[in-house]
Amino acid sequence: MSPGANERTAIDIAEMRSLANFDVTAVKMELRGGEMEWRKRRNIVDIISADSVFDKSQRPFMSRLERYQRAMAMANRIEELREHLKWDEREVDIAYSLCDEPVPLDLHTVPPAFAPVLSSQASADFLKEYGDLIRYRGILGAYAQTELGHGSNLQALETTATFIPEEQEFEIHSPTLTSTKWWIGALGRTATHAVVQAKLILPSGQDMGPHLFFVQVRSLEDHKPMPGITMGDIGPKAHGGYTATDNGFARFNRVRIPRSAMLSKFANVTEDGRYVKPPHAKLSYGGMLYIRSIMVTSAGWNLAKAITIAIRYTSVRRQGGPLGQEDQVIKYQSVYYRLLPILARAYVYIFLGRRMRALFQSMSSRLSSGDTSLLAETHAVTAALKVLTSSSTTESIEVARRAMGGHGFSAFAGIGRLYADQLPSTTYEGDNFVLDNQVVRSALKSLKSLRKRSSRDSATLSPSSEYLRYLESSPPLASSWYNPARSISLLQRRAAFIIQNLADNNSEDAGANQRASKAIAEAFVAARIGEILEEFRRLGVRERDVLRKLFLLYLIITVEDGLADILSFDLLPRDPKTRTRSDPTASLRAIINRLCLELLPNSIGLSDAFGFTDWELDSALGVSDGKVYEALWERAQLEPLNKETVVEGYTEHIKPILQRGQRLSKIQGKL
Amino acid sequence: MSPGANERTAIDIAEMRSLANFDVTAVKMELRGGEMEWRKRRNIVDIISADSVFDKSQRPFMSRLERYQRAMAMANRIEELREHLKWDEREVDIAYSLCDEPVPLDLHTVPPAFAPVLSSQASADFLKEYGDLIRYRGILGAYAQTELGHGSNLQALETTATFIPEEQEFEIHSPTLTSTKWWIGALGRTATHAVVQAKLILPSGQDMGPHLFFVQVRSLEDHKPMPGITMGDIGPKAHGGYTATDNGFARFNRVRIPRSAMLSKFANVTEDGRYVKPPHAKLSYGGMLYIRSIMVTSAGWNLAKAITIAIRYTSVRRQGGPLGQEDQVIKYQSVYYRLLPILARAYVYIFLGRRMRALFQSMSSRLSSGDTSLLAETHAVTAALKVLTSSSTTESIEVARRAMGGHGFSAFAGIGRLYADQLPSTTYEGDNFVLDNQVVRSALKSLKSLRKRSSRDSATLSPSSEYLRYLESSPPLASSWYNPARSISLLQRRAAFIIQNLADNNSEDAGANQRASKAIAEAFVAARIGEILEEFRRLGVRERDVLRKLFLLYLIITVEDGLADILSFDLLPRDPKTRTRSDPTASLRAIINRLCLELLPNSIGLSDAFGFTDWELDSALGVSDGKVYEALWERAQLEPLNKETVVEGYTEHIKPILQRGQRLSKIQGKL
Repeated sequence: MSPGANERTAIDIAEMRSLANFDVTAVKMELRGGEMEWRKRRNIVDIISADSVFDKSQRPFMSRLERYQRAMAMANRIEELREHLKWDEREVDIAYSLCDEPVPLDLHTVPPAFAPVLSSQASADFLKEYGDLIRYRGILGAYAQTELGHGSNLQALETTATFIPEEQEFEIHSPTLTSTKWWIGALGRTATHAVVQAKLILPSGQDMGPHLFFVQVRSLEDHKPMPGITMGDIGPKAHGGYTATDNGFARFNRVRIPRSAMLSKFANVTEDGRYVKPPHAKLSYGGMLYIRSIMVTSAGWNLAKAITIAIRYTSVRRQGGPLGQEDQVIKYQSVYYRLLPILARAYVYIFLGRRMRALFQSMSSRLSSGDTSLLAETHAVTAALKVLTSSSTTESIEVARRAMGGHGFSAFAGIGRLYADQLPSTTYEGDNFVLDNQVVRSALKSLKSLRKRSSRDSATLSPSSEYLRYLESSPPLASSWYNPARSISLLQRRAAFIIQNLADNNSEDAGANQRASKAIAEAFVAARIGEILEEFRRLGVRERDVLRKLFLLYLIITVEDGLADILSFDLLPRDPKTRTRSDPTASLRAIINRLCLELLPNSIGLSDAFGFTDWELDSALGVSDGKVYEALWERAQLEPLNKETVVEGYTEHIKPILQRGQRLSKIQGKL
Repeated sequence: MSPGANERTAIDIAEMRSLANFDVTAVKMELRGGEMEWRKRRNIVDIISADSVFDKSQRPFMSRLERYQRAMAMANRIEELREHLKWDEREVDIAYSLCDEPVPLDLHTVPPAFAPVLSSQASADFLKEYGDLIRYRGILGAYAQTELGHGSNLQALETTATFIPEEQEFEIHSPTLTSTKWWIGALGRTATHAVVQAKLILPSGQDMGPHLFFVQVRSLEDHKPMPGITMGDIGPKAHGGYTATDNGFARFNRVRIPRSAMLSKFANVTEDGRYVKPPHAKLSYGGMLYIRSIMVTSAGWNLAKAITIAIRYTSVRRQGGPLGQEDQVIKYQSVYYRLLPILARAYVYIFLGRRMRALFQSMSSRLSSGDTSLLAETHAVTAALKVLTSSSTTESIEVARRAMGGHGFSAFAGIGRLYADQLPSTTYEGDNFVLDNQVVRSALKSLKSLRKRSSRDSATLSPSSEYLRYLESSPPLASSWYNPARSISLLQRRAAFIIQNLADNNSEDAGANQRASKAIAEAFVAARIGEILEEFRRLGVRERDVLRKLFLLYLIITVEDGLADILSFDLLPRDPKTRTRSDPTASLRAIINRLCLELLPNSIGLSDAFGFTDWELDSALGVSDGKVYEALWERAQLEPLNKETVVEGYTEHIKPILQRGQRLSKIQGKL
């Protein structure tokens, strides 16, 4: 007898797994940064996943308070393990990342949060006093910037810090409802201290604009709010995102802090109330750029989780046709055409993220010696990539979820959770629409300075604007889509023409900046892919081949997505060889399909190479052994609604409906 | 003194409101189907919103069990009000719709659910016995089709109904884990009866394929599951969508039901076990087509809520520049360019939905007299529109949310909830990817039959394929974008060329069916907009003018979205008049911007015209008086995490972290 629909799933995934024609472990080590790093991680995964504090089975049913308490219990356990197992900072970071959701203590350490801001902007004296307390969580911090009425625009913040020379103190004050600090992670119920952005007011009444102040907000004795501070949690978030994090509010009613509490590495106020200017206005930019640079990597790993789940499930789910003859869903064109580009994107972002960290580090080391030469470049690149990766990752997670059909809407699928926690990345650390404008401004500046130069000087263009060289010379396109140079060059030409168009025409296009910013980011990523492909030379031939196809797919899908621009600038030659004389996109679409079909047998292998355990994925549909129906069944039995044989509330609400209905129907019958 | 950021909000919205240059009430009556219907609705809104059972203030903090109980309490209250106030079916429907979320009793009445399937497929005898009981909720129903291992593909369902002539009974049985009925709304904890899809097995062993059976699943005495049935809730859904609905599972272990429990209006089994064939295989299609036809309207009203919230908030939120000089967010290009097309889409779907209901009704009345001539047409149109409206509505709600920046991520914004409940519409009632293929198949059939005809016969094309006439003759485009005919014709030509391309070329394009289905749906909607614009002649000149601009914006934005296709078929003439010689899209983009700027002063008026009360919107950011910051503040105070001065769990989890950290930092200091 042939296996039933349930038994078939384990067979299907094993068969798909056996089709991989490359060394999965070799690719895994490449993704995970080498065997040492992989072993370190796996060791911590083993410890944490075996510990009941980190159990995830009840998580879908918990209230916010329970989720918050679970998050703090996990933090407490990690700090305990740090001490007992002598974990270093890297190991502690890995452990926190395994919490598998944003937790309040992230805000203590993840830039531009509490600790990083202090370490880059506080004075040496301050760090001597507080450095170890911060490192070992002897105090817990929050970074309090945004206000109820004001977002990332520092100019409009209303909170004041007025210097009172008589007492050598600052008075922190929230003069209005809209000046209430709002959205501040960990401030709601956790933090003992906060770095507060406030307008510095000198004794003369002069407003020196936003500066940073270190404020104790809760007692270290009993955790009660300090006098004059009204604090709380701002309430639940959309889709249950960031549930365990206590984004909070705070109002300050003339709260006094000592003069030494101003973060004074760069700017300062003297005892007699004079202002000491920072040597360079932009020295405090580092934190925001850092978080944007690591957002690429974290987007990549989030995508990796989502696509592992989706590829596994669609490999075992069968659909269409009569029972016993149904096809694996992933073999349908509409499904693989959607999922394999996401797999490619996850790989691209992970490798790209490494280059972004390197870029940030070289900028950062120059900055610490006062050299701001890389700042503008890093700002432009990280802003463009932040918009691109946050938007496309959010969208891709949802595409992956939807490709899973009905069961993808179950919370047990695990993808909804990834989406909800990824979602705010499109608005935090710089709203994407605001950043788009900055990206375009910077590109227009590069174009202007290019045009000013003697001539043919484009060899010195920085990586973020190298695409502009196509405005000076435009060699023929590589003729084959199999050559990555064709897509890379097309994407760079498109960015160049959009920027030229913006500069030269009095455009009335309200969406122009969004399209331009995207084109610039995609041109940048395309060029980096060219470099990354070169690096793969060190891999074995089969690993190199499969990764090359994956990155090629990413490039061509990006071209497809940008066709409206590319065609409107007439950049794509009409292909005389295809039968569709009228459609220059036919060969492009065909190559996408062929690449997908070539990658399909490796799809389980490529997602296995991310190296997630079932515990890490926490998805009934993404289980490694393919037994998705058994996993869904088991999880449904845990639903608290199922606790009693007859549901609680039957007598009060359901029985009266039935009895009334039976009575009315009888009356009706007698009429 | 100038008003502060908080006081400014009420002034801003009042000013924006005063800019409307048309009669808001007149447009409201047009949207709501006339004054009688509007008054009926308003009366029920007044009753329901004053009733504490329908209070929404605690909703964001409730567990699933509490949400479920609240839903059943609301249903009980509505049924009580029906009796006391002598509400008719229409009034009861309105009351249920005001629950403002999917509730279990929806599954009793909303097609293709319990009651509609029974009324269209059960015998007259059955309806005589059960009709009133169903109408007055003397029994509560569920429609049990999908199984754990199988979706909408009826051919693969595993549940069996075996006829046992000796006892004149059917035996309902779930032979495998994957045959477990799954996702069935209201089956989890509510329903007393279910219509079950099962393969009819004759005494000969012959499998007659899926048929419908009426099965009692819970006792009417004590609500306990009937013997042999294992039932429960399948667990929470992604993003907390459908929280109050008990989507459930059921396994049947040889459950007996009488022969009369087969729904036998069309097919039947005789006493001696012979099968009686239905007169026409497709007579049972009605329900699915009906729900798809009403999905357009409900998508429109969901969008209307989301865009009302977003337009109100972005009209009072100010950003950019120093305090006191910040601009209203909606005045930024990147914001109005995103929001006004959504406003247009909401209007289009509401008016289009009315035409779809009319189309369904004419098909339905023909069908009841055995005339299936409109069935294929209605199927093609509703499938295409179902895909288009469910996908674009989901996406638009998220675009609206994101345009609201950081606060849009608060649950109190109210948009996340709309998104979560709209989301499954992309996969239920026919997965969008599956429907795309059906739409394209039907279009290719129309093309084939068009080509077979004598010649120039395209005047007889049905509405769903009238765009194909452009393959026969292609008159010049209307020259101005201000003429809707230009966009309508472009969208129809694009659909025609895509279908021709699919028919004539051996396409290797894996995304072709998705693009083609979308093009067909958009061509259909465009043609209907042409007709709807004609109907606006009866309105006043200013109302007609503003609605005309709104619908024109929808058309042109749709063209912009389809540019990749339109350009690849070279359908858009390059414009010699613009300075951007190389870009044929410049004039299109410019007209979008101009239309947005013309509509902007009317944007609050146009969203007020939807007629939602604050209670209906349930959004801190969408309050009619603009006082968004006060509303956010008040709601945050209700968050249960804020109940105690020091958060519950401090002693167990937070205090140990702080004490350990202080101890370690001291040790470190001594080293």
